[in-house]
Amino acid sequence: MVNKSNQNENPYGYHDIKTGEYVITRPDTPTPWINYLGEGRYGGIISNTAGGFSFDRDPRNRRVTRYRYNAVPGDQPGRYIYLRDQETGEFWSPTWQPVVDKALDSYECRHGAAYTKIRSQYQGIKAEILYFVPLTHDDEDCPCELWVMRVKNEGNRKRNLRSFSYVEFSFYDAIIDTTNLDWGGHIVHSRMRDGIIYTSTQFRDTTTFFSCNIMPSGFDTDREIFIGRYRDLSNPVVVEAGNPKNSEAPRGNNIGSLCHDIELKPGEERELVFIMGVTEKPSKIKSVVKRYQESEAIMRAFDALKEDWNNFLGAFTVETPDAEMNIMLNFWNAVQCRANLYWSRFVSGYDTGLGRGMGTRDSAQDTLGTVHNLPEHAKETLTMLWKLQYPDGHAWHQVFPLTGEGGAGLAEEIPEWPQWFSDDHLWLIIGTCGYLKETGDYAYLGERIPYWEGNDETVWEHMLQAVEFTLNHLGPQGLPRIGFSDWNDTMNIDHGSGKAESVWTGMQFCYALLQIKELCLALGKTEDAQRFSQLHAEMANVINQTAWDGKWYARAYDDEGKPVGVKSEIYNQISLNPQTWSVMSELGDQKQAKQAMESAYKMLNTPYGLKLMSPPYDEYQRRIQGTTTFPPGAKENGGIFCHANTWAIVAAAQLGDGDLAYQYYTQISPLARKDADVYLAEPYVYCQNICSPEHPNAGMGRNTWLTGTSSWTYVAGTQWILGIRPTYQGLQIAPVISEDWQGFKAIRIFRNVSYHITVRRSGPGNDVRLVVDGQPIEGDVVPLPDESKKKVDVMVELGK
Amino acid sequence: MVNKSNQNENPYGYHDIKTGEYVITRPDTPTPWINYLGEGRYGGIISNTAGGFSFDRDPRNRRVTRYRYNAVPGDQPGRYIYLRDQETGEFWSPTWQPVVDKALDSYECRHGAAYTKIRSQYQGIKAEILYFVPLTHDDEDCPCELWVMRVKNEGNRKRNLRSFSYVEFSFYDAIIDTTNLDWGGHIVHSRMRDGIIYTSTQFRDTTTFFSCNIMPSGFDTDREIFIGRYRDLSNPVVVEAGNPKNSEAPRGNNIGSLCHDIELKPGEERELVFIMGVTEKPSKIKSVVKRYQESEAIMRAFDALKEDWNNFLGAFTVETPDAEMNIMLNFWNAVQCRANLYWSRFVSGYDTGLGRGMGTRDSAQDTLGTVHNLPEHAKETLTMLWKLQYPDGHAWHQVFPLTGEGGAGLAEEIPEWPQWFSDDHLWLIIGTCGYLKETGDYAYLGERIPYWEGNDETVWEHMLQAVEFTLNHLGPQGLPRIGFSDWNDTMNIDHGSGKAESVWTGMQFCYALLQIKELCLALGKTEDAQRFSQLHAEMANVINQTAWDGKWYARAYDDEGKPVGVKSEIYNQISLNPQTWSVMSELGDQKQAKQAMESAYKMLNTPYGLKLMSPPYDEYQRRIQGTTTFPPGAKENGGIFCHANTWAIVAAAQLGDGDLAYQYYTQISPLARKDADVYLAEPYVYCQNICSPEHPNAGMGRNTWLTGTSSWTYVAGTQWILGIRPTYQGLQIAPVISEDWQGFKAIRIFRNVSYHITVRRSGPGNDVRLVVDGQPIEGDVVPLPDESKKKVDVMVELGK
Repeated sequence: MVNKSNQNENPYGYHDIKTGEYVITRPDTPTPWINYLGEGRYGGIISNTAGGFSFDRDPRNRRVTRYRYNAVPGDQPGRYIYLRDQETGEFWSPTWQPVVDKALDSYECRHGAAYTKIRSQYQGIKAEILYFVPLTHDDEDCPCELWVMRVKNEGNRKRNLRSFSYVEFSFYDAIIDTTNLDWGGHIVHSRMRDGIIYTSTQFRDTTTFFSCNIMPSGFDTDREIFIGRYRDLSNPVVVEAGNPKNSEAPRGNNIGSLCHDIELKPGEERELVFIMGVTEKPSKIKSVVKRYQESEAIMRAFDALKEDWNNFLGAFTVETPDAEMNIMLNFWNAVQCRANLYWSRFVSGYDTGLGRGMGTRDSAQDTLGTVHNLPEHAKETLTMLWKLQYPDGHAWHQVFPLTGEGGAGLAEEIPEWPQWFSDDHLWLIIGTCGYLKETGDYAYLGERIPYWEGNDETVWEHMLQAVEFTLNHLGPQGLPRIGFSDWNDTMNIDHGSGKAESVWTGMQFCYALLQIKELCLALGKTEDAQRFSQLHAEMANVINQTAWDGKWYARAYDDEGKPVGVKSEIYNQISLNPQTWSVMSELGDQKQAKQAMESAYKMLNTPYGLKLMSPPYDEYQRRIQGTTTFPPGAKENGGIFCHANTWAIVAAAQLGDGDLAYQYYTQISPLARKDADVYLAEPYVYCQNICSPEHPNAGMGRNTWLTGTSSWTYVAGTQWILGIRPTYQGLQIAPVISEDWQGFKAIRIFRNVSYHITVRRSGPGNDVRLVVDGQPIEGDVVPLPDESKKKVDVMVELGK
Repeated sequence: MVNKSNQNENPYGYHDIKTGEYVITRPDTPTPWINYLGEGRYGGIISNTAGGFSFDRDPRNRRVTRYRYNAVPGDQPGRYIYLRDQETGEFWSPTWQPVVDKALDSYECRHGAAYTKIRSQYQGIKAEILYFVPLTHDDEDCPCELWVMRVKNEGNRKRNLRSFSYVEFSFYDAIIDTTNLDWGGHIVHSRMRDGIIYTSTQFRDTTTFFSCNIMPSGFDTDREIFIGRYRDLSNPVVVEAGNPKNSEAPRGNNIGSLCHDIELKPGEERELVFIMGVTEKPSKIKSVVKRYQESEAIMRAFDALKEDWNNFLGAFTVETPDAEMNIMLNFWNAVQCRANLYWSRFVSGYDTGLGRGMGTRDSAQDTLGTVHNLPEHAKETLTMLWKLQYPDGHAWHQVFPLTGEGGAGLAEEIPEWPQWFSDDHLWLIIGTCGYLKETGDYAYLGERIPYWEGNDETVWEHMLQAVEFTLNHLGPQGLPRIGFSDWNDTMNIDHGSGKAESVWTGMQFCYALLQIKELCLALGKTEDAQRFSQLHAEMANVINQTAWDGKWYARAYDDEGKPVGVKSEIYNQISLNPQTWSVMSELGDQKQAKQAMESAYKMLNTPYGLKLMSPPYDEYQRRIQGTTTFPPGAKENGGIFCHANTWAIVAAAQLGDGDLAYQYYTQISPLARKDADVYLAEPYVYCQNICSPEHPNAGMGRNTWLTGTSSWTYVAGTQWILGIRPTYQGLQIAPVISEDWQGFKAIRIFRNVSYHITVRRSGPGNDVRLVVDGQPIEGDVVPLPDESKKKVDVMVELGK
């Protein structure tokens, strides 16, 4: 059962255990395999061939460069540098794209934590480009990124090269850039002053700058002049001819192209550092350009970045028998969680960064996987989201982080349907309890946060109002009304009747009540705890009375009171979420929960993961809407929704089935997928969904990086399989690992104390006996140590 | 002074006087030179290398194919066919794009009226593709386009070819197609059945179809499979290998590629006819595909199209000493006017078809240039626009024609500023009077049309309410308040004060009053006529009192009562429109009007036309807003706004200066521009604006095809230079031609009578003596003849 990882099985790359980097060894990956640069301020995406784009905080309203999604040729433009041999006139790109007809002699892309390094060799010239964004304070006037290029002559004759950078600037408003070619494309212009390209408008101070630590010998800023008519990025006329035209674009498409002469004796190496950024204060540009003139300063910036990420990653490290699980938990899953906390679902390889802002549901869940290493940021996110809550307890579905503006998302398109989602406000309870358990920062409960269009109230009151909203919006059977939808955006079954109910939201409500009850107990609020316990029992009872379908739980009730997700239907006879959450929400009947999970396994599991439901709809149904717009096996219509798979891991662990939890965990692991030409997606980060066997593209992964899968797999892996869980009383250690595992080690920072945990299996089963700093303790919770203590050793004996 | 046209001076093409086509002789035009297909229902744009896209009525909501605006490579994709020599493996494209590295042995593109024909030769294979949309009834279930390809072997050995078509389908909602890759790109799929590609979703019946009159030997519908990874349209893997993969796309990017084997003996020719369309009733597709199986049916459809356009063009033909003026008035200007009437400013080489709908101001003016040959359509347009009028008299600024939904356009972005434009409703008076003068359809005045959110009222009452709105919204000096702006969208000087005034709107109001007064007189409504005459005199007086700046008229007054467009300012000392409209609106002081026009000539004229104002702002000013976002010499900031130039032609003619009117007319004529590599734009249709000498791209034309320049140049040329004007009493003939012209001929259909007009100059000046069917008449208006009469001969002696 133990996954014996062979890191070289993937034909396109491997994870380098020493550096933490994913190393891509061929440029022609099945799709662009991307990475993120930046830490929530200035940032962007970059693919393994340097495709991608940059922005400052908001990819829609302060875009820096362009990217053509879904275009032909694909994954263009990006952060490119052409190299040209001035003697032969031959030119190529060290990142392969955009000169793909020049096959490189060697190629390697290393995606690290918030940096990417691409190196290659072509006819004796070795080149390496390191891309990163220096750590940026919120009040930095000129946030920027750096491209550090080293070019080396590996041959034995002198080489006379020229380099030409290429980056395509966007109008700062990316929607204008796409749709209003007349205005945006006519008011932007560029100037070259003292080696710095300034791209701006007469309209605003917003200025993009591009420069290099070596004064260029020429430049171009006019795309049409640089590329030439009816040419493309594979053969720009300026690069082909070898001579920059020093064009200052008076309008049109503006680019950043700096030309440098690079003479290299045999064995000689040169370094060029390009800097690009954006500012509202153009007078400050010179100083930031100056800041990164010297190699030392640049390397200091890179070291600081690495240190920051090492600290982040160091908050929890594991050593299990599964090398791939180690890689995910120690590195990529954590990195992905941080990307989600920053960018939510804003901008990725498939989300164009043109709109939607951050989701309440999404961002609340994103805190779960980052609260142990970015507690302050997680709290800020929760506070931003609580501001979206109305006095009646429900919350806006999304928020534009730069302006704080809320929105109802998809619901806005159908104003006659409910404009609220039944789950948003409940996630805020769950996220807040996660924060409190991790930090013990009970003062947060007393912080006053305004309601949307309402007065300030404490976080505690906000939580109570969230409970009230659900209680005040129950349907005919006593289950929560579904609103526009619940977690499943595409289950749109309330067409204005106000009667459709979500079984799953009932379970989520139970789960939230358990969380808040636990909090009350920790705070000594016994009466409150009793009330929530009572509410939990009542809702559990309603669910058991109304939703048990013989062998599993139903999913919902539609406008007319007809069930969804039951065996009497033609389509969607069983849905995954009510089965997993029947365990997580502790409905009371353990046997029934077990049977529900067995049904899910039997009817929904595939080698690629569990389907969200089955059988899929093969026709559009007005009654269901969204789900039924997808073909069978795709996304919510019976596809493998990875986010929902994570709850199966949690539920299997909660039922004590370590092998099944591990199986569910491994099934959706991107590293475990060696069939890269089927899976297509990045092998180092989770994707949102995979086409199920019903679909012609069975096994294909889609929508990587930004997905709730990330935080919940992290939670499932660390808290439920490895069983290392923060509680109000201390760090709980209750692993539910595979019977085959003989143990594992972990180091976990919890409330500023470093727990060194060693688990050894002494027999089958999940019982634990803890020895803390040499002393056996009762139970599975390591009590909070004295304040003076910074390190705690925990030996865990596992097995009956 | 007479323009001696040498049609071959343009290095990229010429107008073919025999066919009416513009013939492009080199594929590498400075920008894509486009044409329009369709007549307001199914249609699209097509460039001289077959780039472009298709849609049914609404390019946003029922898009058929994709186009990547402003991308690299440019002007892709389109309606492509690859040809491949199966013996050598070599392939090329008869339209040059997208295989631009294969230089064709010969190339020619012929843009005709609603069709385009591209022919070329490559290594002994001649190919010709004719693109057109058959005339389409409004109730056609399956509107479609046809591509008629003829391939001929010009060599003396047998050739074994394969053809591969390529067109890229869009999700029907073009905004989803651009921004929601997750949903749109995952629910669309294609199937091949009996030689027909069906591309659709499970969600909706909307189905795109693609087929050929010859059964294909293979096909592809999956873009990724057809093109291959990291390739582009210049080297699709399927074409390179020569074998279709018969891919039915289950999702992703769907294309229409049919493969045909074409064996050609020496001298042999084959014909293939591709058909593409869209429908909500997929069961009807087979019958429409069948309809165009036979060569004869196809040629009938093409002949019917040509006949329709010949009838349209035949409503007014001229023969002047200026060959280029003849081409524009007899062909391209009329064709352009029709395109404007259909598509307003929706979709063009620069307008992406993603939004704005039709403009009230724009479409009302578009009727002026088409009312003589498409009176019914012009009336429908006016009726649609009158429905946008509120009971208080102002009108929405724009309308989405499929839904009838109105909108305030740009004003919506700043809700605290006025949400109305001071000119929209007045254009409706002007357009309606144009319709009535042309048709004599006075019954239209009695037709009842609902107000926006109001009761039905007659057109006459609507017109009165338009007058009332302006009277009820006068500013502190008695000039009309400017609202969000007047005709000049970028003059945003009312920031909520309600005090900013537009001098130009005052003049437009006077002009509209003159129009309505003339109508009253024709209807015998003497009292009404007197009232409007009085109102005209009062407003004219206000303008003369408040706006005369010594040598010209001011443009406006801002929020604080400061004038705009006066000599005491640093920027914008003089604006063009108040000078031209001071003549057109008959302010009363002929000397002053003349001086205003002289000032305009002196301070604003350039070899490329008259600047909209001068000097331009070289900084952004909150006070002025929009105009000052542009750099100096661009668009409204002192650029040459062609639309405004047309009024200079009218005004010069009204002042009796034939040479000046002709100079202004010629200056902006695209055919007159031989410097194609400066002008860049199509030489056969007017553009909206030209960069003025202050701009680094001086002389560059922008935003062709869809512009108010079209109808007003047509009006200026036919009604004011040639002087052939419809009036309520009959056809007026009062030419104001160049002193150098010895005369001209024209045939004008007016109220179903064909007027054959011959003008001969007998001396200098503009006095006329008319001889109608051999009888001299008094004055310059040919009275309406007996109903029996279908032809009238008019001999005109011109000169003092």
